[in-house]
Amino acid sequence: MSAESPARASDEVRLARAALTSICEPASHGLRALVGAFGPVEALHRLEHGEPPKDIARDVEARRAVDRAAADLAAAEAVGGRLVCPEDDEWPVRVDDLAAVSDPADPVMPPVALWVRGRGHLGTLAARSVSMVGSRAATSYGMHVAGELAYGLADRGWTVVSGGAFGIDGAAHRGALAAGAATVAVLASGIDQPYPLGHRAMFDRIVADGLVVSEWPPGSTPRRLRFLVRNRVIAALSAGTVVVEAAARSGARMTARRAAELGRPLMAVPGSITSAMSVGAHQLLRSGGAVLVTSAAEVIDCVGRIGEDYAEPPREPPMARDDLVPELARVLEGVPARQALPAEAISAEAGVRVLDVLRALPQLAAAGLVEETTAGFRLTAAGRRPAASRGQAPLLR
Amino acid sequence: MSAESPARASDEVRLARAALTSICEPASHGLRALVGAFGPVEALHRLEHGEPPKDIARDVEARRAVDRAAADLAAAEAVGGRLVCPEDDEWPVRVDDLAAVSDPADPVMPPVALWVRGRGHLGTLAARSVSMVGSRAATSYGMHVAGELAYGLADRGWTVVSGGAFGIDGAAHRGALAAGAATVAVLASGIDQPYPLGHRAMFDRIVADGLVVSEWPPGSTPRRLRFLVRNRVIAALSAGTVVVEAAARSGARMTARRAAELGRPLMAVPGSITSAMSVGAHQLLRSGGAVLVTSAAEVIDCVGRIGEDYAEPPREPPMARDDLVPELARVLEGVPARQALPAEAISAEAGVRVLDVLRALPQLAAAGLVEETTAGFRLTAAGRRPAASRGQAPLLR
Repeated sequence: MSAESPARASDEVRLARAALTSICEPASHGLRALVGAFGPVEALHRLEHGEPPKDIARDVEARRAVDRAAADLAAAEAVGGRLVCPEDDEWPVRVDDLAAVSDPADPVMPPVALWVRGRGHLGTLAARSVSMVGSRAATSYGMHVAGELAYGLADRGWTVVSGGAFGIDGAAHRGALAAGAATVAVLASGIDQPYPLGHRAMFDRIVADGLVVSEWPPGSTPRRLRFLVRNRVIAALSAGTVVVEAAARSGARMTARRAAELGRPLMAVPGSITSAMSVGAHQLLRSGGAVLVTSAAEVIDCVGRIGEDYAEPPREPPMARDDLVPELARVLEGVPARQALPAEAISAEAGVRVLDVLRALPQLAAAGLVEETTAGFRLTAAGRRPAASRGQAPLLR
Repeated sequence: MSAESPARASDEVRLARAALTSICEPASHGLRALVGAFGPVEALHRLEHGEPPKDIARDVEARRAVDRAAADLAAAEAVGGRLVCPEDDEWPVRVDDLAAVSDPADPVMPPVALWVRGRGHLGTLAARSVSMVGSRAATSYGMHVAGELAYGLADRGWTVVSGGAFGIDGAAHRGALAAGAATVAVLASGIDQPYPLGHRAMFDRIVADGLVVSEWPPGSTPRRLRFLVRNRVIAALSAGTVVVEAAARSGARMTARRAAELGRPLMAVPGSITSAMSVGAHQLLRSGGAVLVTSAAEVIDCVGRIGEDYAEPPREPPMARDDLVPELARVLEGVPARQALPAEAISAEAGVRVLDVLRALPQLAAAGLVEETTAGFRLTAAGRRPAASRGQAPLLR
C-alpha cells in the first residue's frame, strides 16, 4: 500500500497495474489469481521474469517483453487521463462483484485497473449510476426513448453509463449531457483514441464533466472481442442496466446477461412488435429476466428499491442526504440536480408543504448544498457530491 | 333433465332459463344459489310467485311480472338464434369456473344460460379459443397487430373470442374472418340487435360460420354496466386472454383481471412507450400479471402450455389429434387449419421428415381429416372438429 495515503495507490503499484493492463488481456482468471496471491508488483515481476501460470501463458507470451507502463501513464496524462487502481479511493467498488460470478469457463474477472479521462470522479459517478445499452442500428423511436430516459435519469441525479457507440449509446450520453450532467462512456479502445471517430465531439463533451473509461492502455485499438469483454464492465459499474433497443442477437443482450448474473436489476424498454430492433428487448422481457420500464421514474424505482437491499460497500462514501436531519433531507430529495425548479414544484416533488420548503431551502443554500437561479433552486456541485468529500456541515446530524 | 336426450335441456328447463335471463341481471349470487338449490324451473317459480331471496329481490321486482320466455325464444329463432343451457352438450363448461372465483362483494357468477346466434357450436369453438381485447380508440399499430395475431391464431385452428366493439375487438374478429375461421363475439346487447350498429356487416359475417353470444334476451339494449358484466364471460369462455392496446383505465383491463382471477393465462402485446394506448398493456406487464407476447405462436405456446395442466372437463369431447396413432397425430399437428401448405412446409412445421409426411397425408386424407388443394394440404372441417362428433375412424387407436 501507499506510503502517502491509505486512499491512493503507491507509484510502484500504479506502475505495476499499468503494466498488467498492457501485457495481458483483461478478465483472466489466472491474472486475478496471481495478483490476489502476490499483489500487483510481485505478480508483474513473475509474469515478466518467471514462468507465467499455465492458463495465462499464451496471453502474456506475445507482450511481456514490452513493459511500457511509464510511457502509457505519460500518454494518459497528456490527454488529461489517469489510471484508477483498486487501491484508490476513486475505485468503483461495484466492479469487484465480477469476481463472484466469474468461472474458468467464462472468465469475467474485474479489471486489474481502469484508465480514465475527464473531470469526473469515477467512484462517485458510478455509485449512483444506471447503464443504458442498445443497438447501434437504432430506430428513431429508440434514439428518442434513450435520450428522454437518459435526460430524466440525469436530471434526477443519476449518472448514465454507456458504451459511446453509435445508436442507443450515443443517444443516452447526449440525453445526459442535455441535462447538464456528467456521463460515463466505457470504451473498448484506449482513452486517447475513443471509438468511433464520428463521436469525437461527443467524447469531448463527455470528458469535460464526466469520464471516458477503458481497461486497455492508451494507444489500444478496438477489436471485436474487446467489445464483448468491455460489456461486463458497463454492467458491473452501474446499479442496474436498461436495454432500450436490441436485435435478436446483440452485444446489448450480453451486457444484459452480465447484469443479471451480477444480480443487478435488468430492465428493458418495450417497443412495437413489428420492429426488429425491439426483438431483443422483448425476448429479455419474455424470458423473465428483465423488468419492463417506460420512464426514468420507473427505472429509478427499480434500481432504488433493489439498492436499499444492496449492502453498500464500506468504502463508498455516504451521500449528503444520509447525513442531514430528516426534515432537510426530505426537501433536498425534491431539489433537482440540474434544471432548477421553483419552491412550489420542489414541494410537490418532495411531498413537503411549501412553507416548510421555503424554510428549508435557505438553510440548505447556507450549507452550500443548493443554489438559487432565476428559475428556482437546484443542487450545487457539493450537494451532488458525497458528504465525506465536503466535510461535516452544521446541518448534518 | 330432458326426457329426449341426456345432452339436451328439456323444453321446460330451457323455458325456465330463458325466463331467468330476462327477470334478473346476470352474475348474481342469489340467483345462482336459488337455481343450485331448486333447479331452474322451481327457482323461476319461486321468483315469480313466492318471496324472492332478499339479495336479489330488488333486481327481480321490476321485471318478474313480465315472463316473456316463449316470446324471447321465438325472437331468437327468428334471427337464427337459440338458447344454450348448462344442460346442453353445447354448453362451454369453462364459464362455470366463474363460480369458484365469485364472492358476494364482487359477484361474477356464471351465466344462467347463453343466447347464441350463428352456425358455430359454442362448446367446440370455446374449447380451443383465445380472447383478444383492447381499446375502442385503438391506434393503427394496435389494429394491425390485433388483426395479424387473430389471423395467426385462426390459421392454427384457434377460435378468437372478443366483444364485437370498434377498435381492437373489430380488428381481432376481422383477422380471424380473413383466415376463413369462425370467431365468437360476446355482446352486451341482445343477439338480435348486435351493438355497435356500424359493425352490422361484420356481425353478419361472424354468424355465417361462428357465433354472437349474449347473456341478455333478444331486444336487450347495451348499457354501461352490462359491458363490464359481459367482460367476465369473454375471459371465462377462452383458454387465455390477450390485451393488445389499452389505456390506463379501460374495460380491457377488467377482462384481464377476470382472466387472472380465473387462473387463465393473461398476455399483453407491448407497444411504443410514447403511446397512451399501450399504457394499460405495459402496466399489466409491469405488474407481473401478464406475459409479453409478440406473435400468435407465442400466444399458443402460452395457452397451450398451461392447457396441458388444465384438467380438461370430462364433458369436453376429445380432439381428433388425441385419438390418432402418434405418427399421424404429429403430422396432423403440422397441417394448417385454413391456408393450405405444401408437404415440405408441413414437414418443417411438424418436425417430421418429408418422406414420412408424404406417407401420412394420404392416410389422413382418406380418414377425411385433411384435404388437398392446389396450394397443398389443410384440415377439413372434420379434421378441425372433435373426434366424438365424427365417430371412430380406422386410423384412430
